[in-house]
Amino acid sequence: MSEDAVRSGVPTHWYNVIADLAGYIPQERRPAQRAGRHGVQPQLPLSIYRQSVSKESFIAIPDEVRAEYERWRPTPLVRARKLEKALGTPAKIYYKYEGVSPSGSHKLNSAIAQAYYYKKAGIRELVTGTGAGQWGTALAMACKSYGMDCTVYMVKCSYEQKPYRRLMMELNGAKVIPSPSVHTEAGRTILLEDPDCPGSLSVASSEAHEYANEGDGVRYSAGSGDNHVLLHQTVIGEEALVQMAERGEFPDTVIGAIGAGSNFAGLAFPFYRASVETGRKTRLVAVEPKSCPKLTRGVYTWDHHDALGNTPMSKMYTLGNDFMPSPIHAGGLRYHGAAPVISWMYHENLVEAVAYAQNEIFEAGVTFARAEQIIPAPESAHAIKHAIDRAVRARESGSTETILFNLSGHGLMDLGAYEKYMNGLLGDDSATELEVDQAIEKLTRARDERGHGSES
Amino acid sequence: MSEDAVRSGVPTHWYNVIADLAGYIPQERRPAQRAGRHGVQPQLPLSIYRQSVSKESFIAIPDEVRAEYERWRPTPLVRARKLEKALGTPAKIYYKYEGVSPSGSHKLNSAIAQAYYYKKAGIRELVTGTGAGQWGTALAMACKSYGMDCTVYMVKCSYEQKPYRRLMMELNGAKVIPSPSVHTEAGRTILLEDPDCPGSLSVASSEAHEYANEGDGVRYSAGSGDNHVLLHQTVIGEEALVQMAERGEFPDTVIGAIGAGSNFAGLAFPFYRASVETGRKTRLVAVEPKSCPKLTRGVYTWDHHDALGNTPMSKMYTLGNDFMPSPIHAGGLRYHGAAPVISWMYHENLVEAVAYAQNEIFEAGVTFARAEQIIPAPESAHAIKHAIDRAVRARESGSTETILFNLSGHGLMDLGAYEKYMNGLLGDDSATELEVDQAIEKLTRARDERGHGSES
Repeated sequence: MSEDAVRSGVPTHWYNVIADLAGYIPQERRPAQRAGRHGVQPQLPLSIYRQSVSKESFIAIPDEVRAEYERWRPTPLVRARKLEKALGTPAKIYYKYEGVSPSGSHKLNSAIAQAYYYKKAGIRELVTGTGAGQWGTALAMACKSYGMDCTVYMVKCSYEQKPYRRLMMELNGAKVIPSPSVHTEAGRTILLEDPDCPGSLSVASSEAHEYANEGDGVRYSAGSGDNHVLLHQTVIGEEALVQMAERGEFPDTVIGAIGAGSNFAGLAFPFYRASVETGRKTRLVAVEPKSCPKLTRGVYTWDHHDALGNTPMSKMYTLGNDFMPSPIHAGGLRYHGAAPVISWMYHENLVEAVAYAQNEIFEAGVTFARAEQIIPAPESAHAIKHAIDRAVRARESGSTETILFNLSGHGLMDLGAYEKYMNGLLGDDSATELEVDQAIEKLTRARDERGHGSES
Repeated sequence: MSEDAVRSGVPTHWYNVIADLAGYIPQERRPAQRAGRHGVQPQLPLSIYRQSVSKESFIAIPDEVRAEYERWRPTPLVRARKLEKALGTPAKIYYKYEGVSPSGSHKLNSAIAQAYYYKKAGIRELVTGTGAGQWGTALAMACKSYGMDCTVYMVKCSYEQKPYRRLMMELNGAKVIPSPSVHTEAGRTILLEDPDCPGSLSVASSEAHEYANEGDGVRYSAGSGDNHVLLHQTVIGEEALVQMAERGEFPDTVIGAIGAGSNFAGLAFPFYRASVETGRKTRLVAVEPKSCPKLTRGVYTWDHHDALGNTPMSKMYTLGNDFMPSPIHAGGLRYHGAAPVISWMYHENLVEAVAYAQNEIFEAGVTFARAEQIIPAPESAHAIKHAIDRAVRARESGSTETILFNLSGHGLMDLGAYEKYMNGLLGDDSATELEVDQAIEKLTRARDERGHGSES
């Protein structure tokens, strides 16, 4: 896309990477349908479904959605000169700051788009699951914007760690329920196994799906992973492409944290296209927590998106939909699988991945905050940690490198976690090698039992 | 100033309203000097002192300061269409959103400038007093940017209400002390009178001045009230002038909350100039809390800026430097006096003032958040309340009006207060009529005893 396509600094189109991935076929083992009280209905409105299977490279952003984006977009692209100086690195470090959105993170990019399409399709309420609350907050705000109801199943350990996130959602009129809850069959099943279960995104997702299935005019809205969500987030990378070009720059390395992938994909996909178009080599790096290492340690196989297996299966890197990550503060990254399209790109060596432990990402977050005066969300601190690692490597090798990362949100709702870190009270909360090993063994066995024929 | 003067959207000059106020003479009863251990030294570096007494209308912003501003400026000017719709008003409501700054409020505009000048003057540490913590956070960040130490006396009731504000300052390397403290003569004097004293900005200011006087290379940095602080904040209004003009608009009413005045002045002063230049009538309205009604109920007389009377006197609207406001959550507005230049303009009927109680401003804040999805700082909610009042009046009278207000900061550190409000647990915390009456009687008596001759 040319600079002409960025009116008033806000892109006119989302970028659909799938159109440019020769060999990738979006597929699900079961169709995305639901059995509601009034028969089988598609879970996605046709408008969104078409986006998710589109073969077009560019999909126009509706004017109404762009008008909303213009309230906080384009977001700043900043050269982290003070961080560079603090690290004494010859590398150039840029960040795209999504924390200026009303919800405080990139999540509003898709929430606004989805609420717009669902509203047009006559839906009156959206329900979802949220980890740290970034997605729940964004969806609550988007629903409020379009006069829709909103229900959020919030992962219990985050619900307790971040009480003000809940309040932000409630202030925007959403109903917030800690998950696992007793209100759904899914929640009760999990609680029966472990009454103290801290919850996970896949459990919250199961509960939200069940709630959606039982209500009239209620739909489940996904915060990450699905094609259309990754698509909506590409406004980040489209803006960044133009903003970098204005500075005469093109990144050698593009970095984003990965839960299911909307944060990473939003920045990285447009740079994938640009690097193919220009023949410039750009490393695209997804950063995950060591306590939930789906890419660096998981298995590429068919799996469900939710814990109870009520959703269709997709082929993805996963730790198993019943994997229960430790209650790290980067709640948005506590998800068992990577988006199918990112998984495919990782499998084809088009993207890279790296994993870090909790204390080292908080250390990176504090280093960044002290240099740049922005306190990052723990999720974003994963990207920062890798950016710092690359910059230090550049210093040590005497080479140069242009690094761009997605500062996906601010950490003002996470100051309790920073306080713990600064007082030395934060654990690494990484899953033990054993837990991950067991999850992988179980997955591999299941895959083998199904036979390899169905894996392709 | 023409649009040419706004390079890359960020103004090249601050606007010095004093140059355009015929009849106003900046004056202090005692010179702004200090007795340090090494003799009498000017408290302000010459660079800042010159700004504070300048007769030039425009003062160039140093490139280094502009480079910092460009990290988050220009800040968005937004039409609050959804709020207009929710109110059913024919009025147009615009807000200038300063909450996108790294510190979360407008305060960083002056903190960066001051740290720059003090650093150049060889100062190694800045000390200040802060109410809600907006100023303290900004100064901590600015000091960190310039490699200076920072000490903040934070009003005790805010210190307790907003623990994460303290953490934000500490994360940026500042030392934060609840005020009144036992570390200073001033603090001990106040505590002797009332061990449970909730503190006030004028007490914190006394402590900070004492700390500055006793340290080598340490200076007191003012967060509001002083001419140079109001000057630095005019980047807000200069940007807004251009942004409104781009939309073909000029406001009938410009609104800002007032503690000492930097929030209000930053937006209003450039519109004062523009309204004089164009002959268009614009109402400039300062909004204060009923619990600290210096403009709507105070006396125009000579007073100190701090509680103990260690600072020079200025002529201002005041409730007396020993006035102790109730511990409302809009801690930034708990200051006994209005900036001398704003006081003069109010006395000359060039600006207006209005006061509201705590619950009605939180109601306005929630109305705004639900419409526009930004949770405002309680200080900013004062401006919102008046904007809503004007908009409702326009609806009722069937007239139109273009309203612009300063959304000076976000309320993400104030969610505890919002929770109280939503649960009906927030008091109005207004000073009783009796307390204000007594303060005014005392002031008037003191003024009369000094004789009116010294008042001019």
